[in-house]
Amino acid sequence: MQIGSVAIVGGTHGNEFTGAYLIKKWQKHPEILKKTSFQTLALLANPQAFQAGRRYIDRDLNRCFTLNDLQNPTLSAWEDKRAKELNQLLGPKGHPKFDFILDLHSTTANMGLTAILPGPDSFYLQLAAYLTSIEPALKVYQTLSQGEDSYYLESISERGFALEVGPVPQGTLHAGLFQQTEALVYAILDYIEKYNRGELTAANSPLTLYRHLKVVDYPRNQNGELEAMVHPQLQGRDYQELKKGDPLFITFEGETIYYEESETVWPVFINEAAYYEQGAAMCHTKKTEVYL
Amino acid sequence: MQIGSVAIVGGTHGNEFTGAYLIKKWQKHPEILKKTSFQTLALLANPQAFQAGRRYIDRDLNRCFTLNDLQNPTLSAWEDKRAKELNQLLGPKGHPKFDFILDLHSTTANMGLTAILPGPDSFYLQLAAYLTSIEPALKVYQTLSQGEDSYYLESISERGFALEVGPVPQGTLHAGLFQQTEALVYAILDYIEKYNRGELTAANSPLTLYRHLKVVDYPRNQNGELEAMVHPQLQGRDYQELKKGDPLFITFEGETIYYEESETVWPVFINEAAYYEQGAAMCHTKKTEVYL
Repeated sequence: MQIGSVAIVGGTHGNEFTGAYLIKKWQKHPEILKKTSFQTLALLANPQAFQAGRRYIDRDLNRCFTLNDLQNPTLSAWEDKRAKELNQLLGPKGHPKFDFILDLHSTTANMGLTAILPGPDSFYLQLAAYLTSIEPALKVYQTLSQGEDSYYLESISERGFALEVGPVPQGTLHAGLFQQTEALVYAILDYIEKYNRGELTAANSPLTLYRHLKVVDYPRNQNGELEAMVHPQLQGRDYQELKKGDPLFITFEGETIYYEESETVWPVFINEAAYYEQGAAMCHTKKTEVYL
Repeated sequence: MQIGSVAIVGGTHGNEFTGAYLIKKWQKHPEILKKTSFQTLALLANPQAFQAGRRYIDRDLNRCFTLNDLQNPTLSAWEDKRAKELNQLLGPKGHPKFDFILDLHSTTANMGLTAILPGPDSFYLQLAAYLTSIEPALKVYQTLSQGEDSYYLESISERGFALEVGPVPQGTLHAGLFQQTEALVYAILDYIEKYNRGELTAANSPLTLYRHLKVVDYPRNQNGELEAMVHPQLQGRDYQELKKGDPLFITFEGETIYYEESETVWPVFINEAAYYEQGAAMCHTKKTEVYL
């Protein structure tokens, strides 16, 4: 199936400036995104949160896109209303106007350039392999499939995924990451152009995938308050091996808490600011080689 | 004049977690702060903003402490009300209950450990010299004096200053910086104890001061929107020399903007998240040696 239309979305979280300012650039210079085999729209997903410099106004927009929620007329938070607008504009989910949605995010974790794939579909794996051949620093993180009714924005379309870049504090731009993200988006558009034209050859080198295992929360007291921080020896070590006996957290009193499980894991989203309230200090993944 | 009471304040900005969680630690373990010659209070300045994970609810609390504003009954924003409460608790400004206020801040800029001194008073210079003898990495930044009626929280007391630590994204804890800040606070309390007991000898080595020159904003269009980012070659280079011809900004289109002034400066607060809305990309300072 050809991809006739692509939506590039940024500012889904209003304080993730990298994507938001890329969108503003492309809205000012739409010719940059022009391709011959498909049309591209650049869209600021949550302008009100961007204006306020906050992740969201009432609730996380990137959790608002289940069919249930989109069809629920009683949900009236700002982000619920905005999700319905975006569903009209890009969707409706199930019969979308856009065949592919790319959602640009940033993180305070040291994740470099990361493609977050929603599932093991070979379309994504081929795309990821193409991108890593162009940008070897790109990491590929495969989240748990949410099944048929994902709550992510990109789930409006049949195909789509998120880019996650960091480390960059919320509410700031780091020019180096801005330019790396931009180059990666252009590579994705090139890929889709080649895909539409049948010009792609299947990748034959293995692809390194980091498959989601589980979310790990901070140690908390019975009121839900933090009792420890990410250990200095783990801070910034996203995508690096964490073995039994390695330092994981350190309490405010200075006591180290070690990783006690026997399974070696590769943590990501270590110390992501937005995840403190969501009960996540990091996500553990398993590093895997996939032969395409 | 002896210092009979010290208030250590954190979370004046609710998303600056380093200070806020240090305060929570000391509220749980007040014995840590016990000294013989003075009493110490640990206080979370803006609990509502901390709860919300935001710098402020309505307006920046650390701009609410002029006498004019404190005495103005018509100001009713959350932070204006909280400023009046804090003024009752710690002040009132002019005749304060607390002789010294230490206000703990954090920044997304690469400022390491910084003491921000409100003026050239020899008490501050001696204290700064003592602290740098214990923690050589400490930088000393002297802001422009605001004259008699400063809007900063610490101006409630006769004496006080702010610690600024970074880089750390808003809404996160970096354990290494948490522990360094903690050690610095204990050194300040030790100093006050020695000061009260007359046990101090005047510092005789020169002190390096970074004196505030001016605030430099991002290039913006006529609507006030950003047109450029901090240049990658300047990012993270707080307290390093910036000379005529060095890269300063880079536009979204990739054009470098150079520093064109003839005066060599030492920038600080480079790319601080909270200052985007305040019209500041960085502050320029002049590095000076002071002989005490």
